[in-house]
Amino acid sequence: MSRTDDPREPFEAVPQTFSPRTDLAVEAHELARAAAPNLRGIDESVEELENFRITRVHVRTVEGARAIGKPPGTYITLDVPGIRRRDPALQDEVAAHLAKELQQLIDIPEDGSVLVVGLGNSHVTPDALGPLVMNRLFVTRHLFHYMPEAIGEGYRTVSGVAPGVLGITGIETSEIVQGIVEHVKPDLVVAIDALAARSLSRVNATIQIADTGINPGAGVGNKRKALNRETLGIPVIAVGVPTVVDASTIANDSMELLLGQLRSSVPNNGATKIFDQFSPEEKWQMIREVLEPLGDNLMVTPKEIDEFIDDTAHVVAKGLNLALHPGMTSEDADVLTH
Amino acid sequence: MSRTDDPREPFEAVPQTFSPRTDLAVEAHELARAAAPNLRGIDESVEELENFRITRVHVRTVEGARAIGKPPGTYITLDVPGIRRRDPALQDEVAAHLAKELQQLIDIPEDGSVLVVGLGNSHVTPDALGPLVMNRLFVTRHLFHYMPEAIGEGYRTVSGVAPGVLGITGIETSEIVQGIVEHVKPDLVVAIDALAARSLSRVNATIQIADTGINPGAGVGNKRKALNRETLGIPVIAVGVPTVVDASTIANDSMELLLGQLRSSVPNNGATKIFDQFSPEEKWQMIREVLEPLGDNLMVTPKEIDEFIDDTAHVVAKGLNLALHPGMTSEDADVLTH
Amino acid sequence: MSRTDDPREPFEAVPQTFSPRTDLAVEAHELARAAAPNLRGIDESVEELENFRITRVHVRTVEGARAIGKPPGTYITLDVPGIRRRDPALQDEVAAHLAKELQQLIDIPEDGSVLVVGLGNSHVTPDALGPLVMNRLFVTRHLFHYMPEAIGEGYRTVSGVAPGVLGITGIETSEIVQGIVEHVKPDLVVAIDALAARSLSRVNATIQIADTGINPGAGVGNKRKALNRETLGIPVIAVGVPTVVDASTIANDSMELLLGQLRSSVPNNGATKIFDQFSPEEKWQMIREVLEPLGDNLMVTPKEIDEFIDDTAHVVAKGLNLALHPGMTSEDADVLTH
Amino acid sequence: MSRTDDPREPFEAVPQTFSPRTDLAVEAHELARAAAPNLRGIDESVEELENFRITRVHVRTVEGARAIGKPPGTYITLDVPGIRRRDPALQDEVAAHLAKELQQLIDIPEDGSVLVVGLGNSHVTPDALGPLVMNRLFVTRHLFHYMPEAIGEGYRTVSGVAPGVLGITGIETSEIVQGIVEHVKPDLVVAIDALAARSLSRVNATIQIADTGINPGAGVGNKRKALNRETLGIPVIAVGVPTVVDASTIANDSMELLLGQLRSSVPNNGATKIFDQFSPEEKWQMIREVLEPLGDNLMVTPKEIDEFIDDTAHVVAKGLNLALHPGMTSEDADVLTH
Repeated sequence: MSRTDDPREPFEAVPQTFSPRTDLAVEAHELARAAAPNLRGIDESVEELENFRITRVHVRTVEGARAIGKPPGTYITLDVPGIRRRDPALQDEVAAHLAKELQQLIDIPEDGSVLVVGLGNSHVTPDALGPLVMNRLFVTRHLFHYMPEAIGEGYRTVSGVAPGVLGITGIETSEIVQGIVEHVKPDLVVAIDALAARSLSRVNATIQIADTGINPGAGVGNKRKALNRETLGIPVIAVGVPTVVDASTIANDSMELLLGQLRSSVPNNGATKIFDQFSPEEKWQMIREVLEPLGDNLMVTPKEIDEFIDDTAHVVAKGLNLALHPGMTSEDADVLTH
Repeated sequence: MSRTDDPREPFEAVPQTFSPRTDLAVEAHELARAAAPNLRGIDESVEELENFRITRVHVRTVEGARAIGKPPGTYITLDVPGIRRRDPALQDEVAAHLAKELQQLIDIPEDGSVLVVGLGNSHVTPDALGPLVMNRLFVTRHLFHYMPEAIGEGYRTVSGVAPGVLGITGIETSEIVQGIVEHVKPDLVVAIDALAARSLSRVNATIQIADTGINPGAGVGNKRKALNRETLGIPVIAVGVPTVVDASTIANDSMELLLGQLRSSVPNNGATKIFDQFSPEEKWQMIREVLEPLGDNLMVTPKEIDEFIDDTAHVVAKGLNLALHPGMTSEDADVLTH
Repeated sequence: MSRTDDPREPFEAVPQTFSPRTDLAVEAHELARAAAPNLRGIDESVEELENFRITRVHVRTVEGARAIGKPPGTYITLDVPGIRRRDPALQDEVAAHLAKELQQLIDIPEDGSVLVVGLGNSHVTPDALGPLVMNRLFVTRHLFHYMPEAIGEGYRTVSGVAPGVLGITGIETSEIVQGIVEHVKPDLVVAIDALAARSLSRVNATIQIADTGINPGAGVGNKRKALNRETLGIPVIAVGVPTVVDASTIANDSMELLLGQLRSSVPNNGATKIFDQFSPEEKWQMIREVLEPLGDNLMVTPKEIDEFIDDTAHVVAKGLNLALHPGMTSEDADVLTH
Repeated sequence: MSRTDDPREPFEAVPQTFSPRTDLAVEAHELARAAAPNLRGIDESVEELENFRITRVHVRTVEGARAIGKPPGTYITLDVPGIRRRDPALQDEVAAHLAKELQQLIDIPEDGSVLVVGLGNSHVTPDALGPLVMNRLFVTRHLFHYMPEAIGEGYRTVSGVAPGVLGITGIETSEIVQGIVEHVKPDLVVAIDALAARSLSRVNATIQIADTGINPGAGVGNKRKALNRETLGIPVIAVGVPTVVDASTIANDSMELLLGQLRSSVPNNGATKIFDQFSPEEKWQMIREVLEPLGDNLMVTPKEIDEFIDDTAHVVAKGLNLALHPGMTSEDADVLTH
């Protein structure tokens, strides 16, 4: 959860106006198109499958990137509402599709090596996805060193770390990862993170893969904190699952819905102007007033979050294991995904 | 969290209109007075101390009880915003005050026995307060049986249980507690529970004590589920701390704030009527629309909830230990509150 | 872990001589036969399968019961060393066999009701099996009450509790369970518990089912604490998995092995008498000396105990779900075993 | 737990003979003196205080280092059996003494910076000390960067990491730490680790500080894995607490005690030779036989380990906070040690 990844740290510049936070390109694209229907530089295609939908967003230009606040690259979203029902057969299907999509983004040799970075705070349930996935990975780097004969064909050199969050380590995550990358020298980094969605319907029901890495406050600068090819010198694939919605998004949505109802209930003779009177600054002020005194520190999350996080971590870890080790079968993955 | 104490269980009748949920009598009283300024049957007095405020609400009549949806009795609220800062000196002070207030409600002999019931789901962080407090208690019932000579003067017979929640046990909590009460035969039950507040400012900053027990959906019926003198045959003191606010409360507050702003921004010539057009049913419908598809299952909680819950459980357990064992000093309590 | 189920509680009478502790009838039978080769009253049969071995011990007489320190009844042991490898296919196979064996012991009507009791301390990893299994059960009692139409054919009324341990509740587990049984009125209790084995080879590799319930210090008296037909008035099936070996067993085994080596290395001319000189009291004294100052409070456990316990809980819960709900398929069980 | 810090990793060369494992210099010194009473190159002094004993071992020569298997340097041991009783006043006293001893070893400027490394596996209870201490530290490095005005006089730049263990990351801990050191550029590393003791009386009752860093298999080579001045280029202070005893130590002690009893019970006329017949290889073979099939993977630990680890982590973290930030009072430390 890049913008607010640590409860103890209020360092982010406070924005002056509200825009609903989303870490999902597919939602950012939707918002941007609503604001600018002629938006260019972004392609989106949707594939409908029996149990889920795969949306591929390609941000092709800097203009497109600016419009959605995400750097140019490919963003693939698997929407699987059914995954909330904890159906192992569906989980296996999702893991297989996740592996397939990941493999298409992984552009390293068959014997290339991969470092998986589990971002987030393992002590805050909805932020623990990264460390949980990392713990379930089948890491092999030490096996290649100590007992190479034990590893079969089609297994890559995989290692992993859970670097912790700034408020607990005092160190930017990117500094830690850079230090490790310089020593481990992987050909690829895969970063796992819990995300914030704009829509409650996507919480615990969506997996996003991106070949752009992790770019907190993208577009706004803040390059120091990024985990991407520019900062690490190697490709970075990001895998994320939304586990929360910002409380401010709920507040904003409530106001927007109400304004919409008011507009539609008043004769369209100019009186509706009063509903457009609020400046973005005023709206943001109202949202902050509703959320006093806990403000940005609030998260909206389903009560079953503990179970969801565990299930989701298993699915992501299995998909990742399959993608990183082309020689691994689904049965192998069941044994090796802890 | 009585109304929705279990994520897996959607059995509560869905209400037809929205009224902000609060388990705090002091908030319910505030809401009721706003709706009916001449409300009778409820006394409220406030004591301001250096670091906190103690509010005592006495519900004296059935009319008052109906108005605030809480049975007649005494409700004492300690408001300590500073407790969020994790200051051990302040925590000790709160524990001491909590003990003092509890002792005034405890009306059993010096050698009376007490059963503490830790309500809630230990696997859902904001709902885990009850089990966490129970685990930190100094229980003595078995010591009195096996090694009575080891127990000093001024210690009562204390036992405790964490009965779990309906969705996990399949049994109403009240049935479990009744069965245990019949065997253990305490003179008093103290029930600990995480609560929902109406106001974010009270989350993790308030402790409520009540001599009325636990009365889910009070006023609405549902007597089977209560833990009170009527169902258990002995006095029941409830101790609770709000750890969440319902997402619907945030949605409602956002709409109300917006309507208030609109009203005040329009000349008071009758045009404001349009802002009063929404029936309670319509408002509730909008709230539900905002919270789709996760609805009632959403909680709004601070990111630091894991730490808060631990701290709060310690304070409540220490206060309870001091109150139940009049011979225990604060230093003893530090050793004996695990 | 019946003899020492709670770290805070040193109430058990200290035995005067050492006999290796085991909660497994199959091990107790082995020890008893070694001591008395003509032992009568106990039948044992072994079934070898591809991946595991099933041993059935029938204690038929009071004499047999006294010899092995377990009450008359049937004890079925599944030995599956391979289960330590976390192979989901093998886990499914074990769950299926466990279900089959359980079903043969379950002698209640198709629409009978069952209370599952998860014994042990959820905060002590090797003792947490009972609560962990309980949490993964598919409980239905509340569903039959609130939404009976949602339950398919072949599902029984199942509820569950994790009553906690004496040192934390101050109440004998049997008192809590009796109270709940009187209210819930099940036709059968199934009690789940972590066990201590005599042999390290059985730790996390064995499941024992018994139709005799839980009988701490059996033969020694202590009837108050039992969970069996006598105390609860209904049949009680116990399911247990050894997760620890007592440190005193390791100490004893080391001494015995050394004595054995000495005996075999000395000409058999009477000199070996010196190795038989130690009385049971002396041996016990030596063991206690080795284990000072932590003594009985020590457990020997594999480092991976955290993972093993989780895996084992899943297998036992799945087997139990299948056994209790004859209409549940293995696929259903995957979805419903949390 | 350096020799066996990861349950999934069996890479250590299997030793051919048994020597009781201890990570404590004070125990290694004791063993070495028993074997070679004229041992030189090691000074030891003992300070007896009311509630505890402080032993200072100075390894002055390479000969001494070889004899005890620990590199030259200073090893300070605080023995506090009373700390098992969870007395907060005693815990404060220990933290204060720990801080004092640490400060005498810390040889960096007042505005120097420190990286704390929490070694071990947070998912294996007795190995979780390092990560638990790290989580409770008051880290300031980010505060100096983002809000320097918020930090008072006498606070140093402190950061921390919990790098995980080889079996889970696939990366040698030393590689991870080196990478981070190169980026964070601290003046000092403090490494926290759970240890194995030779004596049960020291489990959870001893804190060792050493200015030699972490040197797994010291004397044996294995320099790659060390965290010391040689590998990191800056001083490394190690703080450790024994939380387990190897099961093989228990087995060995049992045999030794028995042999001692046999020797003393036999007329001293040469017959005792038979008790000296066992070569170290044979003894080791017997130990391994006793511990089959789980062998090196076994730990002996008190049942209350969960509580002990939490308490100990608090004491160590408080002592460390006080030592690293000379301007911090004990009251500050209570607030800032989470």
